[in-house]
Amino acid sequence: MAYENETVTLDSTISSNIIEAIEAIVGKENVLAEESILIEYGHDKTEDLVFLPDLVVKPGNTAEVSEVLKICNQHKIFVTPRGAGTGLAGGALPVQKGIILSMERFNKIINIDELNLQATVEPGVITEIFQNAVKEKGLFYPPDPSSKGSCYLGGNLANNSGGPKAVKYGVTRDYVINMEVVLPTGEVIWTGANVMKNSTGYNLTQLMCGSEGTLGIITKIVFKLRGYPQKNILLLIPFTTNEEACRAIAAIFVEGIQPSGVEFFEREAGIKTIDYCEQVLNSPVTTQLPEDMGAYLLCELDGNDEELLMRDAEKVMKVAERFSIGEVLFADSAAQKEELWKVRKNISPAVNWKTVTKSDDVVVPRSNLPKLVTGIKEIGKQYGFNTVCFGHLGDGNLHINFLREGLTDHEWETKIPEGIGEVFKLVVKLGGTLSGEHGVGITKRPYMNIAMSEINLNLMRGIKNVFDPNGILNPGKIF
Amino acid sequence: MAYENETVTLDSTISSNIIEAIEAIVGKENVLAEESILIEYGHDKTEDLVFLPDLVVKPGNTAEVSEVLKICNQHKIFVTPRGAGTGLAGGALPVQKGIILSMERFNKIINIDELNLQATVEPGVITEIFQNAVKEKGLFYPPDPSSKGSCYLGGNLANNSGGPKAVKYGVTRDYVINMEVVLPTGEVIWTGANVMKNSTGYNLTQLMCGSEGTLGIITKIVFKLRGYPQKNILLLIPFTTNEEACRAIAAIFVEGIQPSGVEFFEREAGIKTIDYCEQVLNSPVTTQLPEDMGAYLLCELDGNDEELLMRDAEKVMKVAERFSIGEVLFADSAAQKEELWKVRKNISPAVNWKTVTKSDDVVVPRSNLPKLVTGIKEIGKQYGFNTVCFGHLGDGNLHINFLREGLTDHEWETKIPEGIGEVFKLVVKLGGTLSGEHGVGITKRPYMNIAMSEINLNLMRGIKNVFDPNGILNPGKIF
Repeated sequence: MAYENETVTLDSTISSNIIEAIEAIVGKENVLAEESILIEYGHDKTEDLVFLPDLVVKPGNTAEVSEVLKICNQHKIFVTPRGAGTGLAGGALPVQKGIILSMERFNKIINIDELNLQATVEPGVITEIFQNAVKEKGLFYPPDPSSKGSCYLGGNLANNSGGPKAVKYGVTRDYVINMEVVLPTGEVIWTGANVMKNSTGYNLTQLMCGSEGTLGIITKIVFKLRGYPQKNILLLIPFTTNEEACRAIAAIFVEGIQPSGVEFFEREAGIKTIDYCEQVLNSPVTTQLPEDMGAYLLCELDGNDEELLMRDAEKVMKVAERFSIGEVLFADSAAQKEELWKVRKNISPAVNWKTVTKSDDVVVPRSNLPKLVTGIKEIGKQYGFNTVCFGHLGDGNLHINFLREGLTDHEWETKIPEGIGEVFKLVVKLGGTLSGEHGVGITKRPYMNIAMSEINLNLMRGIKNVFDPNGILNPGKIF
Repeated sequence: MAYENETVTLDSTISSNIIEAIEAIVGKENVLAEESILIEYGHDKTEDLVFLPDLVVKPGNTAEVSEVLKICNQHKIFVTPRGAGTGLAGGALPVQKGIILSMERFNKIINIDELNLQATVEPGVITEIFQNAVKEKGLFYPPDPSSKGSCYLGGNLANNSGGPKAVKYGVTRDYVINMEVVLPTGEVIWTGANVMKNSTGYNLTQLMCGSEGTLGIITKIVFKLRGYPQKNILLLIPFTTNEEACRAIAAIFVEGIQPSGVEFFEREAGIKTIDYCEQVLNSPVTTQLPEDMGAYLLCELDGNDEELLMRDAEKVMKVAERFSIGEVLFADSAAQKEELWKVRKNISPAVNWKTVTKSDDVVVPRSNLPKLVTGIKEIGKQYGFNTVCFGHLGDGNLHINFLREGLTDHEWETKIPEGIGEVFKLVVKLGGTLSGEHGVGITKRPYMNIAMSEINLNLMRGIKNVFDPNGILNPGKIF
């Protein structure tokens, strides 16, 4: 499927006068047009897609972003904002050329306010660096996408990223309380206030969060923080089938247990990852995945009281024993926990190392997970492709990698998109929606009418038009 | 201060043809225009304000709301949606006449989904009735405004209501995942999906939440729920001064303790409440408030493990002992807990029974609470009025009742609004904003430019225009 915008109206060639004006704002060294650079900034982690921009611009502060946007707005030049380029839905791809506005120089943690449990950061800070910085002060920023070692907080906000801990602690949206945003017109606003509760007008903070860079450029973020949980327990529970594992998930929550992670992966995903870790990362996995099993649940419990955690772990075991399981593995050292998480977190890279994939992250009410997983496998059979399923099943968020493997170009471009459409229809039928944490970008855009009515889409288009009347910001995304 | 809209453009008289058309939709018995009814629906809990509507309409289902709105939109008739009328910012007052759309017949709990920890309700369900219904199934819906015995869930959503438990469990916004909404055009949408994570387009659910009935009429709500915490501990800590109490609050959180309520009230508020309970409610308060103290903190801890709670309570005590306190009272029975909460929850009615008040609910970062409370008292002295301060200080949300007492009409209409303006300026200087949970309505509307720039307000006006091009819905509110 070609990802094109049906309504290209802007002129995307950028005159030398304009380039000089932009160079005068951000410095010559921060305006790049060499082919190798354009290629680097022309792809993210989405399939094998590449769209070359005309220019890569790296502003260094809010005022520079504002001045660059004023010029682009005046001359109707497309601007595609970019964080670390770890997105999986093509949200940072310059599908209509123009400028890539890279936020990589916005990499400062401005302030960690221990008294109020808040932090102010720039959007180009790597998520894990921020987590470690607040952890040093005994504080906790929970959202932890698998790419946390490389992705930026700004990109997390743009896509409302989640991760394993979301099931207990919520997603990025649940931690942002205020942002500085440069509008496409160059105007600068703060969206909220640095407070824990706010009922003062429409919630522009929540509107920005998840808007995928289509409404404004985030230049500062205020997050709330929590106390860091001191202890955790990790169990790997093997199940004979995918369906059994999915059924067990709903049962765990019904028992009133609140794990800090409930991750699922198919056996095939586990094997691929171990292979990948050993061959590519040159980092052997010593933990044996129990044999002859269909799927695994990684269940983490965290808190400050070991005894309480042990009691909850026993409850989890009791629930699991009602299903068809193999021998449960308690991770008994930090090293073993890390290894189990390594397997889980490298699934997507491992699958992509074996073959090109299209990646989706649908979400359904937890109790419908068994039907969803069964349905996906049936659709795969019908359309002739394989899938690997894994993800944050504690909150009903299933990642599906659709594998290219030996498919012809024609099959890849027709059968897979049709099959994805069928999966999305099933998801919506089961009360779910298209994306739990990756965003819509360009890959889910053609399917948005499965998830919502034209009335919803028109409201979104109307909001876009209020923020960005010339339509310069991240064109061709979401709707 | 008169609350008027500067741009009245619609014709608010309603012809008999239109009234008949509306009667045909909702039934004659649900269209009311008797003076006593108009007076009843012409005020809420805001000061002593009354604005009479032309008509009160009580639709019974989504289709009726849609049909009524189509007519109103076509004929440009103002529509002011109304829940239980417990608002404190005038958000439900028909300041430009037209129709009051009362949602009181939308009073069904449609479904409690124990498997997915979700519930679907109509907006006219009383908050406490809903809480009790889910509690029967071991589940917990935490948002608990003081008016929970009479307010509606729809009104809670419109204002993003909080309450004492917000400090640990969050506000209404943190529990809503999907809504059915009738737009002013009569079109019906669902804003999201019944899932725990959602990154599929702009977040219309969060945009609706806190929009005070200006964007659409909520006709169904899907909430997520939690497991009900089985145990709690309640402490009343007396402090010699307001400032000491406020200082202690930030210190409690810095120690990593997460109370499920940190409520503050001045001695005067306590005395007024006890007086009110004994005289008006004919319900004596046997608990003695420790004498010669300036202020009290009510600190609740909840969870499932009594031993852990006791340990946390000891930590709270240790923190409190670093400040100037009196003898701490442990509530040792359910009856005593209830009595302490009765004192706290009746402060606002008690103060309003003694004198007309203007009520605000500002919010600042916790560490700035001492400066805020001191500043409010200074402003009161300067402008010649008294205030009573209380509220959810765990999350920095201070309620201020500005007392009329012996003020002349002229003083009430000039000095108090000027003083409120000064308080709001102080709040914003301290990093806070105008409303933590009551909303803007009409009472804070004249002050919105203190909290945010004209650019923000114009974005909000633009969004309003996308949803409500004819501007019929809840005119004169927010901006």
